[in-house]
Amino acid sequence: MTAKKIRTAISPTREENFSDWYQAVIKGAEMAENSVVRGCMVIRPWGFGLWENIQKVLDKRIKATGHENAYFPLLIPKSFFQKEADHIEGFATECAVVTHTRLENQDGTLVPAGKLEEEYIIRPTSEMIIGESFSKWVQSYRDLPLKINQWANVMRWEMRTRMFLRTSEFLWQEGHTAHETEKEAREETETMLQEYKKFLESYLAMPVLEGEKTPEERFPGGDNTYSVEVMMQDKKALQAGTSHYLGQNFSKSLDITFQTRDEKEEFAYTTSWGVSTRLIGGLIMTHSDDDGLVLPPKIAPKHIVIMPFLSKKIATQKLTQPY
Amino acid sequence: MTAKKIRTAISPTREENFSDWYQAVIKGAEMAENSVVRGCMVIRPWGFGLWENIQKVLDKRIKATGHENAYFPLLIPKSFFQKEADHIEGFATECAVVTHTRLENQDGTLVPAGKLEEEYIIRPTSEMIIGESFSKWVQSYRDLPLKINQWANVMRWEMRTRMFLRTSEFLWQEGHTAHETEKEAREETETMLQEYKKFLESYLAMPVLEGEKTPEERFPGGDNTYSVEVMMQDKKALQAGTSHYLGQNFSKSLDITFQTRDEKEEFAYTTSWGVSTRLIGGLIMTHSDDDGLVLPPKIAPKHIVIMPFLSKKIATQKLTQPY
Repeated sequence: MTAKKIRTAISPTREENFSDWYQAVIKGAEMAENSVVRGCMVIRPWGFGLWENIQKVLDKRIKATGHENAYFPLLIPKSFFQKEADHIEGFATECAVVTHTRLENQDGTLVPAGKLEEEYIIRPTSEMIIGESFSKWVQSYRDLPLKINQWANVMRWEMRTRMFLRTSEFLWQEGHTAHETEKEAREETETMLQEYKKFLESYLAMPVLEGEKTPEERFPGGDNTYSVEVMMQDKKALQAGTSHYLGQNFSKSLDITFQTRDEKEEFAYTTSWGVSTRLIGGLIMTHSDDDGLVLPPKIAPKHIVIMPFLSKKIATQKLTQPY
Repeated sequence: MTAKKIRTAISPTREENFSDWYQAVIKGAEMAENSVVRGCMVIRPWGFGLWENIQKVLDKRIKATGHENAYFPLLIPKSFFQKEADHIEGFATECAVVTHTRLENQDGTLVPAGKLEEEYIIRPTSEMIIGESFSKWVQSYRDLPLKINQWANVMRWEMRTRMFLRTSEFLWQEGHTAHETEKEAREETETMLQEYKKFLESYLAMPVLEGEKTPEERFPGGDNTYSVEVMMQDKKALQAGTSHYLGQNFSKSLDITFQTRDEKEEFAYTTSWGVSTRLIGGLIMTHSDDDGLVLPPKIAPKHIVIMPFLSKKIATQKLTQPY
């Protein structure tokens, strides 16, 4: 990756067509490209290096705030969605459905075989599959708070995709926590929102406005959704991360109960929060210009030093003079 | 996680039933558990901490040997497998097949809808989808060698599963490289095999024997498969990592061609190599005993110090004496 490749005049300019300029910057810097899989991208080394840097810094903060990483299955049984569909309005259904477990060679053509009795869905988010484990791990107030994070790929069958900003498959971290009281769960929701704000401001050098989303934009099944919104150069806001207070809704549908200090049975209060590879799209739209990719120094995978070549006379004149 | 939880007498012992002992160690140390998804496991924080440590150390070595990380789609179009099925004997077909893109609510029941024209397969390994990108990125000998690594989840519909050792979904790293000459590609295959050996011996403290697999055990489509085999306490060998010299086979089926130094068109020589969460199973079977989990110090996520409580008299007597 040479500086030349990254910084060459981009056509069109931001002024002419912001959306096409954005795609051209990504192409010019070889950060990512569309793949043969509909709506999915290939994240090339330069783009992936940014994600690795984001992961490294954010993972430290997630651990410093008392969370542990774990890994849960990619596939979710259909019955889990049925549960959610029953009690959550506005339930999203665009998703990748696994129906077969084999490819069979029939007269030279591969056809799906081994039909599943119950279909699986590729996780669009993991509240349900992680909640299922929580329901086993949480018995008493002594098991709380339970604070888990997962770095993973997720998939939503998106109709209109844009690299990094909205792709069918994307990479993210998803935090999932369970608490003894509403107060504690609300504090967790706020803590992680503030962590995102600090990270975006101090590390990615983005201008952040945080606040609560309207009921229409709320995470389905949650009580409150908060987000960090970032101002892009086209004067539009980009939702860069969300933190959800889920109340007892998921606990009730997944049976996450615990014995309280006074020996009663209660449903845990849960939260979830996440940021994704969309941050890379936000980085580009915040900092880049009509000559291509510009990155804040802390996140850049490689730093470039500009070496001026001067004639000998000028060089000795200028460079030996004190500043 | 307390030491007590990890180190309590395991029933049965290794002598009595090695396989049941293995499962009991994992359960006792809360490393992983079976999930509601057939053949998939939940990797709990203690187990995942081991994987994070493996990743950290191995990722440094992968980069130090000139590779860059990237990320490719989870799904692979069926036609790619058709290509492989046409020219590779022993082609494996147990895999998760995505056939629909929506769940539709029909009279209160969710049914798969939005049938795909061409089905997708969840990657069992990424030679084909990464090779597809390579065919675009490689034009001239100047683009070679191309040395890429991916940390990812993969899926194979396994009939008999054992936690960490063989699960339908597992985590791994897969290196994929393309070279100008057979010699260079063979050197790469050997270099990464030796990297695995060094890593297993010096970091995981495992006894390693490396060598070539028989033609029957070879990676389908490869010319040579080499592996690092590790001796377990039941005197059985565990395949802990593989490195494949793929010759020009994948280049030919995926059209990875380049212009040579004397301006001819040639197919690139490719390799691939990987280790997975299976290493955690190997760690357990190498080091643990009838009291539970034992880990070599470099890989352990948490270290335990044993504090002897001695009577004052003995303490001053013993501890002030020189060794």
